[in-house]
Amino acid sequence: MIPEVLTAGQFATVYNALSLVIAAQLFTAIFLVIALPRVLPRYRTALTIAAIVCGIAAYHYFRIFASFTEAFETETPGGLGDFSQAIGVGFNEGYRYVDWLLTVPLLLVELVAVLALTRKAQNRLLWMLVPASILMIAFGYPGEISSDPVARTIWGILSTIPFLVILYVLFVELTKSLAVQPVRVRRTLSNLRWLLLLSWGVYPIAYLLPSFDIGADGWVYKQVGYSIADIIAKAVYAIVIYQVARTKSFIEDPSFARAEEGHAGETAPAAARR
Amino acid sequence: MIPEVLTAGQFATVYNALSLVIAAQLFTAIFLVIALPRVLPRYRTALTIAAIVCGIAAYHYFRIFASFTEAFETETPGGLGDFSQAIGVGFNEGYRYVDWLLTVPLLLVELVAVLALTRKAQNRLLWMLVPASILMIAFGYPGEISSDPVARTIWGILSTIPFLVILYVLFVELTKSLAVQPVRVRRTLSNLRWLLLLSWGVYPIAYLLPSFDIGADGWVYKQVGYSIADIIAKAVYAIVIYQVARTKSFIEDPSFARAEEGHAGETAPAAARR
Repeated sequence: MIPEVLTAGQFATVYNALSLVIAAQLFTAIFLVIALPRVLPRYRTALTIAAIVCGIAAYHYFRIFASFTEAFETETPGGLGDFSQAIGVGFNEGYRYVDWLLTVPLLLVELVAVLALTRKAQNRLLWMLVPASILMIAFGYPGEISSDPVARTIWGILSTIPFLVILYVLFVELTKSLAVQPVRVRRTLSNLRWLLLLSWGVYPIAYLLPSFDIGADGWVYKQVGYSIADIIAKAVYAIVIYQVARTKSFIEDPSFARAEEGHAGETAPAAARR
Repeated sequence: MIPEVLTAGQFATVYNALSLVIAAQLFTAIFLVIALPRVLPRYRTALTIAAIVCGIAAYHYFRIFASFTEAFETETPGGLGDFSQAIGVGFNEGYRYVDWLLTVPLLLVELVAVLALTRKAQNRLLWMLVPASILMIAFGYPGEISSDPVARTIWGILSTIPFLVILYVLFVELTKSLAVQPVRVRRTLSNLRWLLLLSWGVYPIAYLLPSFDIGADGWVYKQVGYSIADIIAKAVYAIVIYQVARTKSFIEDPSFARAEEGHAGETAPAAARR
């Protein structure tokens, strides 16, 4: 439930957390677009999807920020007193689900794309991951907007089933594909699954927090928790994907590596120039 | 503390200083993106990060500017009289810390990237610099928002510890890496550390100013001080990084230098043309 009153400190905490997410997602997206030529063409689809994910998140956080600042108001000078719910406008939690519905399947596509598997192996993984991730989000939403703890629990459990499918695919099926990856990126790719898992772990915790009736503080923690989880699962994740793509590019094309990594004092060979 | 009243002159001073920073950061970012092909590929990551830093700063100064103009209002014709705090909105100092949390680690990554060290030497420096810079900013924020001089002092001291770690890495560890840089850029790179140090020196001074209780003037000086420091530490710093990257590009690839530096009347050799 959205709290009726926020202190100035609680309001500022949510306000700055939301603004931090906008900056992190927007500029990660811009970075990835500019840095596209810094990997081989075969990895540019993965980076483009990563940029789109961060761009979609930035858009939704602009919306969430606007919704939040409209939903609470205060009559105190300098905004130093308590904020209460505005008349006629509410905070729209739905933006988060619309965002996840688009971005969570794309995050999994991004991971599979950077593996650069055969088309057959790639399709096999995506036909399991994409539908499961859509169902996971779709089942979470009715629970999120419900104020009935029983309904929240039932939808929460329903949402967990496709989540377990995703876990199975990531930690059993995908493990076979990791064996064909270069040694230097194998551990990073393996850890990426944990990054997804740990950051996704924040969502059910944030989902359960309001059930414990810790009032406005619980709601503030939920907003900050979602914000940090979104930065880790999208922006930090994208930068790791970029690093993997770059390392693989260097391994697969030594002349590209020389042009991109030439060290101080070295002379660039003519073949490496573009 | 945010002053209750600003004279029209104080208001205009902060207003124009904030607008100056937006222009400086935004167009330095745009310049760097356009100028990317003017350095060898190996230096484009450093310039991309420099552009992202200036872009993030521009975003936050747009926000700070909007927050400032909403937080103060006057009833006088032509806005020629005193400004007082608006009802229901405050000036959000938190934007600066959100900005620094993202940009200060990136400024250090930018410096290390332009050195073009081996991956091992680069990672060694970054694993010290990035965590230290995040802690430095994170410890500064609770002090900034506190009105208790004792709390301000304690957080100020805690923030100084990671700052000293950064100083050690820049002036001891990094000095070894400077030895392998071309002679023509060695002094500039060495001076860049002082540019960071001197511009960062403005932040603790601006942080301490309100403690001396010089009222609205102290607050105005703090805003102007932060603005100038941000221009030097990000935009001016980026342009110096660009000059270093360009000089190193010319030294390492003579045909690139001929194509980029050919003087009036010279004919570019076919190999260098693109």
